[in-house]
Amino acid sequence: MSLIESEWFTEIWGEQTAFSVRYSERLFDRVSKFQRIEIFRTEAMGTVLILGGCFMVTEKDAFIYHEMLVHPAMSVLSHARKVLVIGGGDGGAVTEVMKYPEVESITLCEIDRMVVESCREYFPEISAGLSDSRAQVVCEDGAAYVAGFEEEFDLILVDSTDPVGPGAALFEMTFYQDIKKSLKKDGIAVFQTESPLFMEKQFVKAVKDLREVFGRQAVYPYLATVPSYPGGLWSFTLCSEFSRPLGQAPSIVPPPIEGELQYYTPDVHRAAFALPAFVERLLL
Amino acid sequence: MSLIESEWFTEIWGEQTAFSVRYSERLFDRVSKFQRIEIFRTEAMGTVLILGGCFMVTEKDAFIYHEMLVHPAMSVLSHARKVLVIGGGDGGAVTEVMKYPEVESITLCEIDRMVVESCREYFPEISAGLSDSRAQVVCEDGAAYVAGFEEEFDLILVDSTDPVGPGAALFEMTFYQDIKKSLKKDGIAVFQTESPLFMEKQFVKAVKDLREVFGRQAVYPYLATVPSYPGGLWSFTLCSEFSRPLGQAPSIVPPPIEGELQYYTPDVHRAAFALPAFVERLLL
Repeated sequence: MSLIESEWFTEIWGEQTAFSVRYSERLFDRVSKFQRIEIFRTEAMGTVLILGGCFMVTEKDAFIYHEMLVHPAMSVLSHARKVLVIGGGDGGAVTEVMKYPEVESITLCEIDRMVVESCREYFPEISAGLSDSRAQVVCEDGAAYVAGFEEEFDLILVDSTDPVGPGAALFEMTFYQDIKKSLKKDGIAVFQTESPLFMEKQFVKAVKDLREVFGRQAVYPYLATVPSYPGGLWSFTLCSEFSRPLGQAPSIVPPPIEGELQYYTPDVHRAAFALPAFVERLLL
Repeated sequence: MSLIESEWFTEIWGEQTAFSVRYSERLFDRVSKFQRIEIFRTEAMGTVLILGGCFMVTEKDAFIYHEMLVHPAMSVLSHARKVLVIGGGDGGAVTEVMKYPEVESITLCEIDRMVVESCREYFPEISAGLSDSRAQVVCEDGAAYVAGFEEEFDLILVDSTDPVGPGAALFEMTFYQDIKKSLKKDGIAVFQTESPLFMEKQFVKAVKDLREVFGRQAVYPYLATVPSYPGGLWSFTLCSEFSRPLGQAPSIVPPPIEGELQYYTPDVHRAAFALPAFVERLLL
């Protein structure tokens, strides 16, 4: 069976597997200073954002990734006022954070302005939070930006691409150290840390490096299923010296927020931190 | 980007998405009385079984599916002596059940003898349990076979393909009723019930039909991530009038078994039953 270029977009992963989606329209296709940005209209996955040839956002499953990046930490933090999102130019993480009225300011630091602009146009629901008066967008290198702060943020979310191209600096030890320095003492940082099944080495390296920076007892990997990412089984790592994501997880999500969520529940919160046996062994 | 037939196998799902894997060798390709059976050697996914054009087993992720089909029920049952597996001609479910010494007999009822024979040859580890003296293989229509029993089995596992072709009869109300009749009063049945994200209708229908047969309080859907199946987020449904999969889950897996498992742990058991908000709503 051959997939014809004019109808299908295909992400080839490691030259060995591929995920393809049939599109009805190529909505956007430009090369920014950092990467090729493509946006397609598809029947199966809704509107789809491709960065550097990789699926980044699909309307079908973006809610899983964004909710699981944001709500585990927000449920544990009782007073997140100042939030920083690094990467995440689609605005999805910002939109989730905006659901909490106690948040006073959110800075989105995305290196590629064209990602932010194209997502505002083609993903109006996912990027809606960027129009909130509490949001500001800074188009700078996230690694350089975060180096300038000390005990500034209650929550930092690292919503990076894979550790290649513009995302590579967001997997470096120096960056992890700067994130720690920029966090308030009782703050939380959450990193997307790749697939433990299909990107085992990158996952293990990220968690072990984070343990070295934050301390072993302050690093909590957790999982969710994101079908459009290679391997589907995706990891995030929550780092906090003071908060315990299981001990402090609330038994309910505040009612006004709960009705807006499609994936996250307090039970899903606890479940996400239950790692399969092979993942536990990888991290020994 | 086009995927060339001579190097890649592609499963096209609903004519809208596709998952492909590059193969180095086509090991087996025959058409049985029921379906086309293909087996490939691949670098990314190990040896791969394709039935009727669909990924059925890959060495990379079969452990997730087989462990999650078998161990939640086996952990809750304290005395499973007689077990029936319907479908599952690859032998993976049988191999997992064989890890429990208390099991006295396992019958595998697979309609397609060629699936069993080709898997014994090309998946020796996954199908190893079929060589255990407690196993017997019956090559018959599972729906007809199960109609002949009454209160016979402690555990019935329905390891079906999708509800098309030879698997369709395994999603019918009559079949569910026959399964219930064939179970001992304190027995458990587990069904694979498709993806709640990519096969929403089939998933909802299966769970609601099972509720009608077993009673609403006796039906427990649960989830695992199976990357090679469409959508990745895969469901199973455990049915039992007497056992409670959460209340009765043991806090440890028996030590001789635990070391052999790659996915299932007691924490993963509890986590699997925590359904994302959108799945809860689908089942209201």
